[in-house]
Amino acid sequence: MKIALAQINTRVGDLKNNSIRIIDFIHRARKAQADLAVFPELSICGYPPEDLVEKKIFVQRNAETLDEILKHTDGIGVLCGFVSPNENPEGHRVFNAAALMENGKIIGIQHKSLLPNYDVFDEMRHFEPAKEKKVFPFRGMNLGIGICEDSWNDKDFWKQRLYHSDPIEELINQGANILINVSASPFHVNKSNLRLNMFKSISQKYHIPCAFVNLVGGNDSLIFDGCSFVLDAEGQLLAQAQSFAEELTVVDIEANRVISNGWTAPDEQQIYEALALGIRDYMSKCGFKKAIIGLSGGIDSALVAAISVEALGKENIIGVSMPSRYSSEHSKDDAKRLATNLGIEYRSIPIESMFNAFLESIHPQFENLPEDITEENIQARLRGNILMALSNKLNAMVLSTGNKSELAVGYCTIYGDMCGGLAVISDVPKTMVYRIARWINREKEIIPRNTIIKPPSAELKPNQTDQDTLPPYDLLDGILEAYIENMREEEEIIQLGYDEKIVKQVLKLVDHNEYKRRQAAPGLRVTTKAFGFGRRLPIAQGWR
Amino acid sequence: MKIALAQINTRVGDLKNNSIRIIDFIHRARKAQADLAVFPELSICGYPPEDLVEKKIFVQRNAETLDEILKHTDGIGVLCGFVSPNENPEGHRVFNAAALMENGKIIGIQHKSLLPNYDVFDEMRHFEPAKEKKVFPFRGMNLGIGICEDSWNDKDFWKQRLYHSDPIEELINQGANILINVSASPFHVNKSNLRLNMFKSISQKYHIPCAFVNLVGGNDSLIFDGCSFVLDAEGQLLAQAQSFAEELTVVDIEANRVISNGWTAPDEQQIYEALALGIRDYMSKCGFKKAIIGLSGGIDSALVAAISVEALGKENIIGVSMPSRYSSEHSKDDAKRLATNLGIEYRSIPIESMFNAFLESIHPQFENLPEDITEENIQARLRGNILMALSNKLNAMVLSTGNKSELAVGYCTIYGDMCGGLAVISDVPKTMVYRIARWINREKEIIPRNTIIKPPSAELKPNQTDQDTLPPYDLLDGILEAYIENMREEEEIIQLGYDEKIVKQVLKLVDHNEYKRRQAAPGLRVTTKAFGFGRRLPIAQGWR
Repeated sequence: MKIALAQINTRVGDLKNNSIRIIDFIHRARKAQADLAVFPELSICGYPPEDLVEKKIFVQRNAETLDEILKHTDGIGVLCGFVSPNENPEGHRVFNAAALMENGKIIGIQHKSLLPNYDVFDEMRHFEPAKEKKVFPFRGMNLGIGICEDSWNDKDFWKQRLYHSDPIEELINQGANILINVSASPFHVNKSNLRLNMFKSISQKYHIPCAFVNLVGGNDSLIFDGCSFVLDAEGQLLAQAQSFAEELTVVDIEANRVISNGWTAPDEQQIYEALALGIRDYMSKCGFKKAIIGLSGGIDSALVAAISVEALGKENIIGVSMPSRYSSEHSKDDAKRLATNLGIEYRSIPIESMFNAFLESIHPQFENLPEDITEENIQARLRGNILMALSNKLNAMVLSTGNKSELAVGYCTIYGDMCGGLAVISDVPKTMVYRIARWINREKEIIPRNTIIKPPSAELKPNQTDQDTLPPYDLLDGILEAYIENMREEEEIIQLGYDEKIVKQVLKLVDHNEYKRRQAAPGLRVTTKAFGFGRRLPIAQGWR
Repeated sequence: MKIALAQINTRVGDLKNNSIRIIDFIHRARKAQADLAVFPELSICGYPPEDLVEKKIFVQRNAETLDEILKHTDGIGVLCGFVSPNENPEGHRVFNAAALMENGKIIGIQHKSLLPNYDVFDEMRHFEPAKEKKVFPFRGMNLGIGICEDSWNDKDFWKQRLYHSDPIEELINQGANILINVSASPFHVNKSNLRLNMFKSISQKYHIPCAFVNLVGGNDSLIFDGCSFVLDAEGQLLAQAQSFAEELTVVDIEANRVISNGWTAPDEQQIYEALALGIRDYMSKCGFKKAIIGLSGGIDSALVAAISVEALGKENIIGVSMPSRYSSEHSKDDAKRLATNLGIEYRSIPIESMFNAFLESIHPQFENLPEDITEENIQARLRGNILMALSNKLNAMVLSTGNKSELAVGYCTIYGDMCGGLAVISDVPKTMVYRIARWINREKEIIPRNTIIKPPSAELKPNQTDQDTLPPYDLLDGILEAYIENMREEEEIIQLGYDEKIVKQVLKLVDHNEYKRRQAAPGLRVTTKAFGFGRRLPIAQGWR
């Protein structure tokens, strides 16, 4: 049997264009003489559709779109994810489903059994779980169809299981002799290896071939990396689609030769490519072409500018330097040099005169209180105002440049440097920002060397550096990873060997700054735990 | 049997102070010779604890706190909500539970069966559902214990049921002769009537008395209104606790006389009181005393100021007028008059000179493009910067004043008038803003009459009024209610009799402005569907 892995990039809610893309890939699969073209989870409506599935008309249009696609299935099997209405008046109104079609007919519909409802997933909010799993005979094979999470509860692979049943085991017991998984499995660093290892383990356990078809593309915070693959009955890799791009991969599961696992890109490259895709898709799916980036001369804005050039082309980036009385000469030079290296438009708008006018008007209100963070924030907010004004006037999206470490501890100004439509590196810790910058510079200087080697500074008061108020970044990032990604608590982190005083300080800052993150722009997720809707905590709370 | 409804106000995560409060109410209930003191859902850790329950140490401390409370149960039964660890390695780590205790011993623990996972609720994210319901014999009665949602799936009361089982029916079948429901049921207008009617229907159906104990207090966006009650075996009201305040209500279910349903406050008063509690609790639970409110002379900021005075006291409110070249004389007068009427501190900070300096610096960037919304937003963002500077310098929280109608259609400036720690009226439609203002003025003028009768305007360009760009508010609010609260789609709303062109325009604006709302301050919820985490929609999407 020849299977075509149709790794497509959908747009949430855009039924029309998603179906055009699906039909195009069906035609290409037919040309390649595939028996079966397999599309990702919820291909018709895009993933995640969120509360759009609560609209009756949305569900209805989605079913009509499936009927349209059905007309294009002559001589080829098509397995395609869609939202299926629940006819039972009890329970949720819809299933997360995949339809198996051929020659204008629906052979079968498989609902999703295991509905992920943790981290960034909210599927129990919307979907009714499948009542049963069934095997579908197709061209001499017995297809066992899993939808994403359905394959993620194997008792031999996982130490701890979240669900009480295993739909894959059921399918095997019913005589499935090939497993097909249609997924919308979002990226984090090295996720593709995890998936491959998990499916290998299933394949070897049951001596059965597995095809895994994943969505590709950015949808708000989530980046789907593709990396679809087929394993033979011994768990050996027969084919793997590329990461971060659409692809039709046709595999003859009997005839194909085993390929090696191939090369896994370094973490820096994975994140770089993921973020480029995330920017490109968020911008285009929101209808924007041009981006505005405030360039401070520092490493964060330099990295965001470099990735944005990769994503959007240098002709679509406007770099804006906004020097103040506290900006060093080297910062201005570094910002300009970055723009030159990248070949992007560069503007300089000094904030001195507006800062003076602002202080003059507001100083009488300050009751002779000493200078403090207030004056720093005023500058950051004037800069935010400038960038947003350019955004309004030039119809370009502001990309904000804060990294995960500073967003974690609140070392950023709400309504100031946090302004923007997308927080590009809000899930990239500062130490990783440096690693990616060095990786970008691996052949020649793109990010100015001085930007990389100088001590990081917000330059909002004289001779300021980040380490005046924060622990060194390697220390900080270690604590933050333990706290945020690995969910360790104070006592456990201290046991890891970190200084008690610093741990207490950092955790307090993280908790206290929840209010800033609540109003942050959507950020692209590249780790196992990003800020945003995958991490839900109260603002007004008394824990700790 | 004498039941004490312990309607308490908890703080999420603050185990120590919550337990002090619980123990205090136990002592008071014992003094009143109650047999059983009943506390709300998750009293020990507060509701909603969100991802805090994913911390092992949090769950452990929570169990230790229960042990502490146990010591105070001599001679009195106590039923108290807490997070109970799941010993089974499979499934979620914790249950949403209630412990029945007496004389230092735990008589029984009841887990929650039905876990709400819609709108603002995320309980399937965290909790394992109960395996079974059991009846607990206590002082001659058989207690049937439900936790909030457990009682919300009666097949005779609801046309459509979300769940397939009914825990209350199970409890009745097991011989329960009194139903006790421990809840954290958030407020929306007239929710207390809905609850009363639903429990009456259950009580009458099974001829059984019911006690309902609800949480009270604000926790971020959610306001819990209390209104706990007891019904006799014929569904007649024996007692009802007050709304929006703590109370210990002791009821002898045999001896108490039936009371009438009492008086239901008008919608305006319900919302006014809910918002006052929401402000008071958000501020105090975040550690703030003073609030800053930008006063434009318009109705929205006037309403927010009036409610804030109710919540925090006039000595804790700073009203700030920030006139520009476009501010009318009457606006400045109205703002000042409001401050005088309320007795709050009043400051005036004209933005003219900073606006000029800003325009001068940025105009060369505008490439001779005509004036547009850019110049309007610049003013709004300068004002945001002023309010936030005062917030930083004076350690006071900015309360933002945008209403639901303008937030819906994006008639507001992100990082401008949207600045603030809490969006007080972001769930109050403009037409309701007027109704509440008139209700506040029912005895004397508090909100200046001119503020109420003049046409609403943002005053960001000459002779501007809201209706230059928006349909009349009664029309707009009708469409918004159909779209947002009642989840009607375009075709259905047009069928309600609204003009097609206006409906299309409004729905497009609502969808398009999702990006602004994503970065809005948390807003207090008073309707069945508020913006925020109870309404989850993609930003980059192609539906419509």
